[in-house]
Amino acid sequence: MTDAVTGTRRRENTRARLLDAAFDVFAEVGLDAASVEAVCDRAGFTRGAFYSNFASKDELFLELARTVSERKLEAITERVREITAESGEREGPEVIVQQLVEVSLDSRQGVLLMSEIRTRAMRDEQTAVSYRAWMDGMVARVTAIIEDLVSTYGMTLRMPAGEFAQIMLDLWESTAVSALTDRLSDEETARLMGRRTHVLADAVVEGFPAE
Amino acid sequence: MTDAVTGTRRRENTRARLLDAAFDVFAEVGLDAASVEAVCDRAGFTRGAFYSNFASKDELFLELARTVSERKLEAITERVREITAESGEREGPEVIVQQLVEVSLDSRQGVLLMSEIRTRAMRDEQTAVSYRAWMDGMVARVTAIIEDLVSTYGMTLRMPAGEFAQIMLDLWESTAVSALTDRLSDEETARLMGRRTHVLADAVVEGFPAE
Repeated sequence: MTDAVTGTRRRENTRARLLDAAFDVFAEVGLDAASVEAVCDRAGFTRGAFYSNFASKDELFLELARTVSERKLEAITERVREITAESGEREGPEVIVQQLVEVSLDSRQGVLLMSEIRTRAMRDEQTAVSYRAWMDGMVARVTAIIEDLVSTYGMTLRMPAGEFAQIMLDLWESTAVSALTDRLSDEETARLMGRRTHVLADAVVEGFPAE
Repeated sequence: MTDAVTGTRRRENTRARLLDAAFDVFAEVGLDAASVEAVCDRAGFTRGAFYSNFASKDELFLELARTVSERKLEAITERVREITAESGEREGPEVIVQQLVEVSLDSRQGVLLMSEIRTRAMRDEQTAVSYRAWMDGMVARVTAIIEDLVSTYGMTLRMPAGEFAQIMLDLWESTAVSALTDRLSDEETARLMGRRTHVLADAVVEGFPAE
């Protein structure tokens, strides 16, 4: 193992520990009250180590939110890959929708983090730039997933796939928020998310099975 | 004028002045930093006067957000009333969509307030209850507006009007946030909002004019 590789690994390890600590601190006090100092204390690093990895507190929390959404998109992409690779009889698209919803539900902390980062992006120019780049990436990936599914099932969309992806992301976000303010259980949340996704898909996708 | 009427008017006046002061304080420091004390100082009232009108800071800001959205819904409802009352040739629905978008755009402060109240509702049970009641009312009113327009134009929806109303509200909210993080001008925001609303309406409403 070369020194460069060891260095890279050590750096990745530092970042991962800072992200874990940031998640704990966020869960306890929320984004506004979370300080770089508290995150460093929790992770057992100096501020110097922090700032050699992240430009600011907002950059750290954006990275944390990206990590959460990355894990979700990976789960969805993996499931879609399995579906499109199946050569024989496939599940109907309405079953797929429910499966994708179930692999992609956010934790309460994940939903709160997204919401608080968004508010900060609205107030702070620097955070806005990173936030928009991240959102554009999310829309692009969901667009690709939709295009994959639509072509696998030979269906037609009544709007461009990119617009559909954005509206789907809006619907998931707003449903996750409602689930939290209504204190729904995970099971109720999955059901509501599945039902709303199905209603939208049914209207936008020609040939999607009606309920 | 009876004493009771004078009392009611005085009370309304106090509430209105507190709401105006709350808006100014919010615009300056944001929701978390805004204190009941700062709002009282600005409005020239004691804390006693405050608490005889609002149960808490969150209740005050929820009322402020409700006032902002009420004004928007009133403008939309008024325009829809004119449209449905017209006996002769009506504008096409795509023109109406753009008109409704233009009367209903939120100010930057309005969008920020909505977003911050929402985050508080996710963290605080009491605020969540008021927030949900307000959102349910909004969805009900947008549903009624959609039903009016659809029946006036003799069109058919590909999903229940209530689901369409919720998705439309999600889309407006997310577009308003994007407009802020992308630093769009009012004109660009109106154009983006109109275009996205049009794309959604075009997919969901059978017989809506395609672009």
